[in-house]
Amino acid sequence: MQTGLYLMKKLSITSPTKIVLLVIDGLGGLPHDNSGLTELETACTPNMDQLASLGNCGLLQTVGTGITPGSAPGHLGLFGYDPFVFTIGRGVLEALGIDFDLQPGDIAARGNFCTLDDAELISDRRAGRISTEEGKNLCRLLGGMEIDGVTVIVQAVKEHRLVAVFRGEGLNDELSDADPQQTGVPPKEVAALAPGAQRTARIVNRFLAQARERLATHHPANMILLRGFSKKPDFPTMADIYKLKATAIASYPMYRGLAKVIGMDVLKTGPTLTDELYTLEQNYNNYNFFFIHIKGADAAGEDGDFKRKVSVIEEADRALPRLLTLKPDVVVITGDHSTPAAMAAHSWHPVPCLLYSAWCRPDRLAKFSESACRQGGLGQIPATSLMPLAMAHGLKLTKFGA
Amino acid sequence: MQTGLYLMKKLSITSPTKIVLLVIDGLGGLPHDNSGLTELETACTPNMDQLASLGNCGLLQTVGTGITPGSAPGHLGLFGYDPFVFTIGRGVLEALGIDFDLQPGDIAARGNFCTLDDAELISDRRAGRISTEEGKNLCRLLGGMEIDGVTVIVQAVKEHRLVAVFRGEGLNDELSDADPQQTGVPPKEVAALAPGAQRTARIVNRFLAQARERLATHHPANMILLRGFSKKPDFPTMADIYKLKATAIASYPMYRGLAKVIGMDVLKTGPTLTDELYTLEQNYNNYNFFFIHIKGADAAGEDGDFKRKVSVIEEADRALPRLLTLKPDVVVITGDHSTPAAMAAHSWHPVPCLLYSAWCRPDRLAKFSESACRQGGLGQIPATSLMPLAMAHGLKLTKFGA
Repeated sequence: MQTGLYLMKKLSITSPTKIVLLVIDGLGGLPHDNSGLTELETACTPNMDQLASLGNCGLLQTVGTGITPGSAPGHLGLFGYDPFVFTIGRGVLEALGIDFDLQPGDIAARGNFCTLDDAELISDRRAGRISTEEGKNLCRLLGGMEIDGVTVIVQAVKEHRLVAVFRGEGLNDELSDADPQQTGVPPKEVAALAPGAQRTARIVNRFLAQARERLATHHPANMILLRGFSKKPDFPTMADIYKLKATAIASYPMYRGLAKVIGMDVLKTGPTLTDELYTLEQNYNNYNFFFIHIKGADAAGEDGDFKRKVSVIEEADRALPRLLTLKPDVVVITGDHSTPAAMAAHSWHPVPCLLYSAWCRPDRLAKFSESACRQGGLGQIPATSLMPLAMAHGLKLTKFGA
Repeated sequence: MQTGLYLMKKLSITSPTKIVLLVIDGLGGLPHDNSGLTELETACTPNMDQLASLGNCGLLQTVGTGITPGSAPGHLGLFGYDPFVFTIGRGVLEALGIDFDLQPGDIAARGNFCTLDDAELISDRRAGRISTEEGKNLCRLLGGMEIDGVTVIVQAVKEHRLVAVFRGEGLNDELSDADPQQTGVPPKEVAALAPGAQRTARIVNRFLAQARERLATHHPANMILLRGFSKKPDFPTMADIYKLKATAIASYPMYRGLAKVIGMDVLKTGPTLTDELYTLEQNYNNYNFFFIHIKGADAAGEDGDFKRKVSVIEEADRALPRLLTLKPDVVVITGDHSTPAAMAAHSWHPVPCLLYSAWCRPDRLAKFSESACRQGGLGQIPATSLMPLAMAHGLKLTKFGA
């Protein structure tokens, strides 16, 4: 086990103090050309600024210097799980993203509808991005096959995307991809990457052959490509490691799924931050760790919409007093990665982080911003160092050694 | 493979963006007694200062906290190769330093002419530092021996220094040194450190016995001492790891040799920075990674010449606009280690580093200096983190995880 988690497991104690981790997805940014200020620096955030003056700020390296994380590794890091050690397959992530209830033993694959030309070569990996509606219809055509005692469940995601789940005894996910991730070549045969995976490879290939037959007349979506065959991983839970009663308040399925993977309870909530705060209040007495997820900042960043990202951050700031009324012992505000509107994509830039507790040695910074965080008391640290800090400030860790 | 390189290999993509790494050898310094300013802080560097204000600064730990690196580990770190994992034998380094064309299977050793007294004990490990000319003559006396099918090539380096290369089938470099690195004792027999090295040990010892005979009358250089038996290492190349078309522009043989070891093309260039820039311009379209090496700052530091080191840095600054005219996507200016004139030697002090790209979250520092770098956005990072950052800012890395 990774040293950090081992230490947490060894030193953590059960205590009633409460930690709230507010993740503003994609929080970090880059300066706007006109003002020279980032999204966070542009936003009017009097409440966060006050908390920054009383607490500690710093910058998180979510995966590693220069590395741009996906959402899953970004979040795993915040929860203290080294994303190099704790990897989740693409198929499982896609299944989590549609709230699919993966069973132990199930193998999930991420799929695309694609177009094959007359020579059986891939001419479009996304089948002209067919509509979500059409994707759903075609998935119904493919679902429910039984091959050698294995049931194949096919669920539409968005547009050309789908999830295929193979359910049955003795399946092995050590399989190569069928998706060559390029055009002008045929789909690949799935190969067993371990001796124990040969039967599974045969089943998947038979499924793909039948899928080709059933889709033959449905040009442009006349075939599917599968990749990222994977089983739900068996990670230690937050309860195991931190002795926390942890819950996730997140409206997006992927984050709920991820939280489930590390044993968090996932609460039913509505789509807005106000809904999430209401859920927090209603459940405040039942947990001592709350992961609250705000998706809007990342979505705005991905759209290259600087202004909208600023207003999502301002909305979070306005919600802060309501959260603080509950008097949590530790409040952390950070992101899982940067999503600068200037790049319209996730990026490698370190993520501003604010930790407040009565036990902080305060930085007395004037503002919560990327530049201020560079001067903050947390320094520039790996995201996996965040949970030990939150636990410490919640007085949930005993001494190391005598 | 070291995690960092593994990640780079996994995430790097081919792209036309260009990275220029300008290494001012021995860049880091210590304050002058009179001014309290280091060499870099004393130098007038308006161009670097402007780049610092637009980009990111930081301090590099070239090998590890408190560790003073040699030139080879210092550079390997900058290229992302952990110097603890990727070690190069002393003999090979010496051979690289004289542009010797080591073949696979060759074993190189670093040698000294030395003086043996009448009792066959070493009285001077450097044979009174004989002239380079005399060294050359004596090397001719030793070269070309054939022992058990193995040819021994002996090349003079400078003064009492030489390189001995053993070329033949089935040689093994797991050998102990013949050089005891002290006086008053006899040269040591070379011993096999692995069962497979016994024949090689016998050959080397026979060579040394014959060398003693041939040199007997050439007091003070009446014997040689060999150490650092080593084969050219088989490192992954920059093309393997980073998918870069990389080239080295360096006038000193050691740095050219080192660059070759990791698969860089080495360009013919002249001895001055102006020559190196001309070479850069002439070859700018053929590569997307350029390592430019400036030796003068280290040489001046080693000589304890504060003023000269300042002027080498100023010369580099004056050359910067010409380099920037090429519009490289990423520019890095740093050193392979510190060589404070005050110490007249390499030192362990972290090395100032400046990274500029349009995708920097700018530090807005006023100057490129050791003190400013301490406030910079890169923080204080291992040198091996530099390449991931340069690659990220060149948009040459894909996302980690989904």
